[in-house]
Amino acid sequence: MAQKTTLKEFEAVYPKLEEALLDHAKSYKLPEKELEWLKKNLEVNPLGGKCNRGMSVPDSASVILGRPLTEDEYFKTATLGWMTELLQAFFLVSDDIMDSSITRRGQPCWYRQEGVGMIAINDAFILESGIYVILKKFFRDHPRYIELVELFHETSFQTELGQLCDLLTAPEDSVNLDNFSLEKYSFIVIYKTAFYSFYLPVALALYYLDIATPKNLQTAKDILIPLGEYFQIQDDYLDNFGLPEHIGKIGTDIKDNKCSWLVNQALKIVTPEQRKVLEDNYGQKDDAKEKVIKQLYDDLKLKELYEEFEEKRAGELKDMINKIDESEGLKKQVFEVFLSKIYKRSK
Amino acid sequence: MAQKTTLKEFEAVYPKLEEALLDHAKSYKLPEKELEWLKKNLEVNPLGGKCNRGMSVPDSASVILGRPLTEDEYFKTATLGWMTELLQAFFLVSDDIMDSSITRRGQPCWYRQEGVGMIAINDAFILESGIYVILKKFFRDHPRYIELVELFHETSFQTELGQLCDLLTAPEDSVNLDNFSLEKYSFIVIYKTAFYSFYLPVALALYYLDIATPKNLQTAKDILIPLGEYFQIQDDYLDNFGLPEHIGKIGTDIKDNKCSWLVNQALKIVTPEQRKVLEDNYGQKDDAKEKVIKQLYDDLKLKELYEEFEEKRAGELKDMINKIDESEGLKKQVFEVFLSKIYKRSK
Repeated sequence: MAQKTTLKEFEAVYPKLEEALLDHAKSYKLPEKELEWLKKNLEVNPLGGKCNRGMSVPDSASVILGRPLTEDEYFKTATLGWMTELLQAFFLVSDDIMDSSITRRGQPCWYRQEGVGMIAINDAFILESGIYVILKKFFRDHPRYIELVELFHETSFQTELGQLCDLLTAPEDSVNLDNFSLEKYSFIVIYKTAFYSFYLPVALALYYLDIATPKNLQTAKDILIPLGEYFQIQDDYLDNFGLPEHIGKIGTDIKDNKCSWLVNQALKIVTPEQRKVLEDNYGQKDDAKEKVIKQLYDDLKLKELYEEFEEKRAGELKDMINKIDESEGLKKQVFEVFLSKIYKRSK
Repeated sequence: MAQKTTLKEFEAVYPKLEEALLDHAKSYKLPEKELEWLKKNLEVNPLGGKCNRGMSVPDSASVILGRPLTEDEYFKTATLGWMTELLQAFFLVSDDIMDSSITRRGQPCWYRQEGVGMIAINDAFILESGIYVILKKFFRDHPRYIELVELFHETSFQTELGQLCDLLTAPEDSVNLDNFSLEKYSFIVIYKTAFYSFYLPVALALYYLDIATPKNLQTAKDILIPLGEYFQIQDDYLDNFGLPEHIGKIGTDIKDNKCSWLVNQALKIVTPEQRKVLEDNYGQKDDAKEKVIKQLYDDLKLKELYEEFEEKRAGELKDMINKIDESEGLKKQVFEVFLSKIYKRSK
């Protein structure tokens, strides 16, 4: 039987990786002050999240093997999981600058912390570089080492293209709903989120176990990309329709001019008069205007539209999962675990 | 006999690499507007420089082979050369943001161009990602593919640590000469500049020719790192003592609070009174104060000190070059070419 990792177990691996990165910097004789800065960067930015992405690497490996992982297997798969978290830290630190965000995980964003500012850009690069230092240190002799490296390159590039599209489609300072479309929306969520959050961890587990056959990788992609898209659509839905006490924040997508699934659905079905309402009220830091949009979403029955979407997509995913050919070592259960965590979640 | 490449020949290779990157993005169905943006990023930022780093890859390979390169050899080594230029573009785009720079190569810095702003951070990431897309496309079957990839990782990390040290040592907005020292200075110039500008191109040529033995790599490093340090010291010297009509700009290191070789030498030899003069006048945007520092540099005979340094360093480098063991395929001439371009340059 597979065994699920806990956040505590997963977090217990990180100090060894941090130490390896600091040792590497010390081998260059990095001066003391810079070493302390690096240590802080490596602690503030990758830590403090829920680690869902990272933990899904050992969890997927354990499901595939059908047994608890050995100590070495756990360390290695958790390390790969931590590399997805480092990749995310690299993106979050820089996205927060690009989006002028204020807080992250309940603290001021890194670039807004005392004395940091634009140094955060270089700190983001260092987080990314850390991925390859760790891969080289712990996976240089793995038969799929180069594929692991290439997977991180490819996923980074995909995420950057998704971010580019997001930045050009929904600039914070100028509202133009003509930019939005469901096609653009899909591109953004698939490239900016689904590849690194859903496909990457499972692909890492497959490479680690050396069962990343073209067929297994394709199956993983065929399921995890629509699943990741569904996850983000649900996120957009919860931003407006979720309960603040469940989601742990008050949604701001309407005020922030986000290219959200809801506004894209609205744009598809509005009357010319309702379109005018959207144009006049979307993407402005104004409570009254936000309320007008919320009312419009209710009038357009977007909650019901989402619920239909969710049933349809979850059904399609279940069908795809049921049809998986397990002959090359992949297991249906890997995907069942993901889907069960997402289906009808309220937070 | 070796044959030197020209900027025109070298530049003629780039369109194929640009096309390969755009084709890769098209394979993801990147929308039209984003594709145009990517094209502009790939043209504005890597192009327009002197390409000294990039051209030194085919030049070094030709010297080692002792003959002109074949068409395929030229394309491949120039491609590796262009990857050093992409790496540099990645760093320059982001350094310009971190340093609040105004112009680059006679144009507004990318982040200051119309509509770009902080999107430039993501554009810098994309330039970096381009390196690995191109390496995979053209070098996947090369026997040293993984070493080429790792060399770019390592060099990136080194440059980032150098940049971190530079940012923490000489922040634009607060002058504190206690931060400066010749040790810090050496760390910054070696890590921020020498590895990627001098060691990287030669190491790439060695890997390409598959003669990157531990001994050859060590010899290259032993010579090119002090040579790169010398180059940057010379740059700092020319910023103050060079002729604007030669160096093509008016030096601003004093006003910009740069951790320059000159100020570090000054700090080492000043009297307490002269130290006070430095404290009171360095790093301020004030013509009169800059003039006071320039006078102090003259009083301290820094020009003569530099000339002594140059003779000593150039002599040491010539000695090291003369002692090179060519038995594993390395050639003294590779380094002679570098040294002759630098020694007593005035621009």
